[in-house]
Amino acid sequence: MDYPRLFEFVESRKEEFLAELGSILRIQSVSADPTKKGEMLRCAEAVSAAMRSVGIENVKLHETEGNPLVYGDYQHSPGRPTVLVYGHYDVQPVDPVSEWETPPFEPTVRGSDLYARGSSDDKGQLFIHLKAFQAMKTIEGDFPVNLKYIFEGEEEIGSVHLEPFIRSHADLLKADVVVISDTAMYGRDMPTICYGLRGMAYTELTVRNAQVDLHSGSFGGAVENPVHVLADIISRLHDRYGRVTVPHFYDDVAQVSDVEREEIARLPYSDAEFLRQSGAVAPFGEYGYSTNERLWIRPTLDVNGIFGGFTGEGAKTIIPSKATAKISMRLVPDQKSTRVLDLFESFVREIAPPTAIVELKKLHSGEPAITPIDHPAVRAASAALEQVFGAKPYFIREGGSIPEVLTFQESLGAPVVLLGFGLPDENSHAPNEHLYLRHFFDGIKTVAVLYDKIGGK
Amino acid sequence: MDYPRLFEFVESRKEEFLAELGSILRIQSVSADPTKKGEMLRCAEAVSAAMRSVGIENVKLHETEGNPLVYGDYQHSPGRPTVLVYGHYDVQPVDPVSEWETPPFEPTVRGSDLYARGSSDDKGQLFIHLKAFQAMKTIEGDFPVNLKYIFEGEEEIGSVHLEPFIRSHADLLKADVVVISDTAMYGRDMPTICYGLRGMAYTELTVRNAQVDLHSGSFGGAVENPVHVLADIISRLHDRYGRVTVPHFYDDVAQVSDVEREEIARLPYSDAEFLRQSGAVAPFGEYGYSTNERLWIRPTLDVNGIFGGFTGEGAKTIIPSKATAKISMRLVPDQKSTRVLDLFESFVREIAPPTAIVELKKLHSGEPAITPIDHPAVRAASAALEQVFGAKPYFIREGGSIPEVLTFQESLGAPVVLLGFGLPDENSHAPNEHLYLRHFFDGIKTVAVLYDKIGGK
Repeated sequence: MDYPRLFEFVESRKEEFLAELGSILRIQSVSADPTKKGEMLRCAEAVSAAMRSVGIENVKLHETEGNPLVYGDYQHSPGRPTVLVYGHYDVQPVDPVSEWETPPFEPTVRGSDLYARGSSDDKGQLFIHLKAFQAMKTIEGDFPVNLKYIFEGEEEIGSVHLEPFIRSHADLLKADVVVISDTAMYGRDMPTICYGLRGMAYTELTVRNAQVDLHSGSFGGAVENPVHVLADIISRLHDRYGRVTVPHFYDDVAQVSDVEREEIARLPYSDAEFLRQSGAVAPFGEYGYSTNERLWIRPTLDVNGIFGGFTGEGAKTIIPSKATAKISMRLVPDQKSTRVLDLFESFVREIAPPTAIVELKKLHSGEPAITPIDHPAVRAASAALEQVFGAKPYFIREGGSIPEVLTFQESLGAPVVLLGFGLPDENSHAPNEHLYLRHFFDGIKTVAVLYDKIGGK
Repeated sequence: MDYPRLFEFVESRKEEFLAELGSILRIQSVSADPTKKGEMLRCAEAVSAAMRSVGIENVKLHETEGNPLVYGDYQHSPGRPTVLVYGHYDVQPVDPVSEWETPPFEPTVRGSDLYARGSSDDKGQLFIHLKAFQAMKTIEGDFPVNLKYIFEGEEEIGSVHLEPFIRSHADLLKADVVVISDTAMYGRDMPTICYGLRGMAYTELTVRNAQVDLHSGSFGGAVENPVHVLADIISRLHDRYGRVTVPHFYDDVAQVSDVEREEIARLPYSDAEFLRQSGAVAPFGEYGYSTNERLWIRPTLDVNGIFGGFTGEGAKTIIPSKATAKISMRLVPDQKSTRVLDLFESFVREIAPPTAIVELKKLHSGEPAITPIDHPAVRAASAALEQVFGAKPYFIREGGSIPEVLTFQESLGAPVVLLGFGLPDENSHAPNEHLYLRHFFDGIKTVAVLYDKIGGK
């Protein structure tokens, strides 16, 4: 493939590409707002039109009980790999509108960035793929890969209709690799590949004693206090080295190679910046691991909420009848949520006292996801980034989950490459969302090169 | 004094006394109900009339910003001790009315009990004192003591105007001993004197880290979790023997004599009954003490409420920015609330970690109160009870506080004798409140004998 011509083409069409993206950014496709149903449909149709205009075929809106999914493909390379691209056309709400410097649905270039709701998350990144298609089709005429596109309109409200669609349309979506551009690079002009996500095991632990709150004058000191029991249990879930004490919790944690830890270590990081971003008093976590390692390659256990007894203003002298903690564990490969939840329950039952009743509810879980950094698809993405950015990409993971990643992996049996062009501070869920323009244009180039690399040409 | 004649007199007037009490019980003096202002005044006037009718002098309604206080006296024994009697004419709300077997303001005798709101708490017990006065005046003609009466109409809503009145009318209320009949006997026909109350030191402990809740995917494992810190602190407030670990917490706890512990030990007690009353899974508390000792003679520390982070239904993956616990300590003589609060704060600050911010708010406190069981006034009450009930009284304490006890002790410098004729299961704050009739009539006899004993005749 003639990369210089490709790059030239993208550089020459900047104004045009921005104008086209702008027309989609003007649509108020806020999925959380029930009054915006019409805008959702209008946006799905605008995305469809943009797909057709660059030459993507079989474009179709698939109705769901919520907002439609947009599908399209271009399959003219038999025997070649098939790439499935996922993105979403819905956006976050814009409140508080008063904090926006320019209106959220009037795309505005200021300095090096394009400001608009959805510019980074995810209309801008979705659009990168359409323009990469257009560039390649214009420059090369044909493709070394087959391409499929699936864009949803409910990512910001939980993607509830995506998973059933993927499962019931496994043939339609069948692919050798899934590419998602909905994450952030580690920093400006720092090409990044995210290759791992943590999973989740979420439980609710309730300690009960009496049927009703008791007067602490009449009973204080002579009955077990459920808050004391719950606090004791929580305090026994970590040791003094920040490790989770649930027996066998770490048994299935896959060894992380020295290469990966070196990759993490070479990332720019400063405590000061981490504290600025988090607002925390100090970095704190498992002994022997750096902040990024704690976030990405180590499983954790956190209380997400706690409540019991009197929680109003002032003083009320009761012994609470019960106390509840929401407790979740972030999992890493190769932990399995069901096993971890079982281990947690066994441990809690083992340390529960005979003076109260302990109840456990399993609320929610998801498996960790990883695409090994030496996987051919990841290597292709790495080569594409290096080609465009002129530097070897950084390999990162994320501490959170992207549930659809796992759904794609499990339902289609395909690896997922997270090739994000956003930035961590682009306010994707806050006022003044913006997209770094260089990443937008270099993203278009990178995706086109990626198709080329996956095609092995 | 001619006790047989006194007892005969009371027995011969049962119907009359009950009818008179009934007319006061019919008045709906619910102090918590703002629509009942007229009933409050009507009740204060009915109490005044009842006082005048038995011969109490200088009866007067003292207006407050709330409900009036009723005062009266009979001071014709110069050089003799003065007894101040306290009671209250307001009652608890009656909801849910549908659960009353007979209407709350239609006094009804069923079996051995009189059913009506206020029968036990405290109109019935207040009335005991008026009838004792009448009996003594009728039988003896004169009194070996001087008598003062103060009855309030806001006990069920916090006695907010009582303390300022006591402090500003210390001369009017000056007495050698204060008698309060507003507590319960340990059981039916078990004469009881309550000689101690626990105090209270109430604090609010907040642990903070970030300014806002953090996404546990982005930060979980790399920042301190305030709930973990709070749980750790709470878990370190008791040792494995149920003792409070705050250094010097027990330093000022007065030694309880063997006699007192023997008194407590001879009280009927069963775990089964305690568990029925409390609904607790098991008796539990400080090692080496019985349930009653844990409730009465030992200080305690309890979390009254806890909250932080996500407390709704389902799952939310956050690291809470802060967590708060309401923590109170029940104090016993000679602990001082200010010192205990200081000790608590020092300990919490000492064990607080460097990874979060700990804030402490002192909310509320009250001192423990005690009238030594060998105090002459207590001995007189004991002798009076034995005279009437034919058995040595039980000496008990209460695990809660009665703030006015301390106010009387501090403002008047007089010991308080808690001579209650109620019963723990008389539903004083619930539907179907009732008063055991034998205690009503024997109460009248006991109070008359008490005046005689205090007068030393």
